[in-house]
Amino acid sequence: MRVFIAGIDGYLGWSLAQYLAARHHVIAGADMFLRRQWVEEIGSHSAMPIASIDERLQALREKYGVSLQFQKGDLRDYGFLRSFLAEFQPEAIVHLGEMPSAPYSMMDQSHSVFTQQNNVVGSLNLLWAIKEVCPNAHLIKLGTMGEYGTPNIDIPEGFFEVEYRGRRDTLPFPRQANSFYHLSKVHDSHNTMFACRVWGLRATDIMQGVVFGTQIDEMGDDPRLHSRLDFDQCFGTAINRFCCQAVIEHPLTLFGGGSQTRGFLPLRDSIQCITLSIENPPQMGEYRVFNQFDETYSIESLATIVQSVANDMGIHVDIKHFDNPRTEADKHYYNPDRQKLVQLGYKPSGNIHGEIRLMLTDLLHYRDRILAKQHILIPDIRWDGNHRRSEPIYENLTHA
Amino acid sequence: MRVFIAGIDGYLGWSLAQYLAARHHVIAGADMFLRRQWVEEIGSHSAMPIASIDERLQALREKYGVSLQFQKGDLRDYGFLRSFLAEFQPEAIVHLGEMPSAPYSMMDQSHSVFTQQNNVVGSLNLLWAIKEVCPNAHLIKLGTMGEYGTPNIDIPEGFFEVEYRGRRDTLPFPRQANSFYHLSKVHDSHNTMFACRVWGLRATDIMQGVVFGTQIDEMGDDPRLHSRLDFDQCFGTAINRFCCQAVIEHPLTLFGGGSQTRGFLPLRDSIQCITLSIENPPQMGEYRVFNQFDETYSIESLATIVQSVANDMGIHVDIKHFDNPRTEADKHYYNPDRQKLVQLGYKPSGNIHGEIRLMLTDLLHYRDRILAKQHILIPDIRWDGNHRRSEPIYENLTHA
Repeated sequence: MRVFIAGIDGYLGWSLAQYLAARHHVIAGADMFLRRQWVEEIGSHSAMPIASIDERLQALREKYGVSLQFQKGDLRDYGFLRSFLAEFQPEAIVHLGEMPSAPYSMMDQSHSVFTQQNNVVGSLNLLWAIKEVCPNAHLIKLGTMGEYGTPNIDIPEGFFEVEYRGRRDTLPFPRQANSFYHLSKVHDSHNTMFACRVWGLRATDIMQGVVFGTQIDEMGDDPRLHSRLDFDQCFGTAINRFCCQAVIEHPLTLFGGGSQTRGFLPLRDSIQCITLSIENPPQMGEYRVFNQFDETYSIESLATIVQSVANDMGIHVDIKHFDNPRTEADKHYYNPDRQKLVQLGYKPSGNIHGEIRLMLTDLLHYRDRILAKQHILIPDIRWDGNHRRSEPIYENLTHA
Repeated sequence: MRVFIAGIDGYLGWSLAQYLAARHHVIAGADMFLRRQWVEEIGSHSAMPIASIDERLQALREKYGVSLQFQKGDLRDYGFLRSFLAEFQPEAIVHLGEMPSAPYSMMDQSHSVFTQQNNVVGSLNLLWAIKEVCPNAHLIKLGTMGEYGTPNIDIPEGFFEVEYRGRRDTLPFPRQANSFYHLSKVHDSHNTMFACRVWGLRATDIMQGVVFGTQIDEMGDDPRLHSRLDFDQCFGTAINRFCCQAVIEHPLTLFGGGSQTRGFLPLRDSIQCITLSIENPPQMGEYRVFNQFDETYSIESLATIVQSVANDMGIHVDIKHFDNPRTEADKHYYNPDRQKLVQLGYKPSGNIHGEIRLMLTDLLHYRDRILAKQHILIPDIRWDGNHRRSEPIYENLTHA
């Protein structure tokens, strides 16, 4: 199939490009390299060094004998986007071109506004461009499980049937996102659902859990094919950050009690699932929502797993609780559905211990790069809008 | 109280300013005069001539002996907004500074993007400015009943308790808006709810029905105090447009079968309700939602009422069905709640026939201004993204 990847230089984008190339899809992609800028802006860098886009594309050519059509450009630039899609005529469009960090979006007024403007306008432009130049293309849009928040009932996949005062209807499941970033994804979901209804577009809206992992098999030993791996407070998600902390023997940082529970999946599962969506498109006019994760874990149990795998490898790390910079429920019900991707053939890799062992092995090569930035391992962006570095707290207090 | 009105030069804003001045509130306001520009852009003008802001403010000074603090400025300009609020220190902020037209937002890519960017960024800036410089201020934000769409169950006021798979929770009522404009209001509602939760701001989110009317009593006979009254396809809402059509004996234009049902309220009720919200603020941290309308009517029944009142005044008009430029359900269930404002003391004026008679009387003075723009009475902005003027259809076909 002809697949366009927006945000092809990112953590998921670059992995997906390789996986799709290995499966003989024809790929084009755009990126503005903003992720590289944002990580630099907050004083960090990827734990694994990443090659320039030219080196990346050259490595892809050498390995697969095909040229990927790449253009530098911004989704907010409608003229650029429209003419790229008009020319390439994709059958599927994977939208990974958004600012993906909750803390970055909570930093201050300008970062909030930037996040929502960037994500909402980019996604809206994509809907218009599809409508105008490739209306049959299937949009695969990355949302997040964070759109749902933590309701006290099960979380279905996008829609639920409710009875209310004796009448029934099937309605979009209410969204209770917990950052301006997560809210931007909620806005995109509403816009996308509407475009499918009134214009007959087709879309898969992926409510994805937190992704972890340093590699997919296709990357092999070529460093130009490696993915980025962030560990800073904005772009370093839980397991990735824990693994980076472990290899420098920094305590694993838990915020609050650690009972916060979320869905997680390895990078290889994320790429497997996105590919399943691409290869099994919905009908024209259909807007479908997939909850995309492998398992749910509390943050504390993940830290314990990382600690235990590290210990087996002779790395000894503590787990330390810090006051939580986010305003979020510590203890809560959490039971999201995850059936639709399994029905399409998703085989969860499931082996979290093995994946973490692989990550630690990969990251041990880059201890110096992580050590050079260890001062950024404790967050100072707070949900109350003030900036104050989190302080250690006694674990038993947080369970009081 | 000290009340700041964003969008004070608009249809609601200018009426509200006078009503609050008469009740001895201290008022400040901002406006960028974009509504005047938009109406001009689409080739129309207000049926009732409106004075310049300087003349308006002068009339207000003469009548009430007080100066209203006005500054021209844009909510998207954070520096402007923040320093105005820091200086004025409002106790209540009424946010009427959004682009309010569904067809305008559906015109093309650039109008869609403008609408969402303008509304989302302006409202987000307002939340940040309140948090930073007047955190105790009560935000009264105008949403729309259109946020809910037309679900097949009753529409509560913002939240509902649901049972799902044997568990219960109180959740935001799902939003199914039907234009990029209505969606922008959904986005604002989500952002506002979040700001109340994490920052402890307080807000009233008003899901308002369609407003009609040419005046409130406070305007008296001074033409400088008159409000605008639009009748074009973008800014002319149902009853206002019907009354303008009636006074030039143009057929009243129904789109589709006319069974579409919505909540409506006179301008005087809208101003009464907003004032009740202002004068009865919620607790700090509370996000409350009011459904604000007087009665629900089908579009067809409204046309029949206007026709009958006009007939009593010796004006004879037909009702004509045109194909519907919007993608929307013609027949549907519609039963929204409306209790909270009544509990605060809202006394619906209720007399729709009297209000329409007053409107026709007012508008008869401006027949020439409406006649001059009668070519814009049939819409050509379509929800499918194409531009084509609606054609007359046989009414009985639409009921098939």
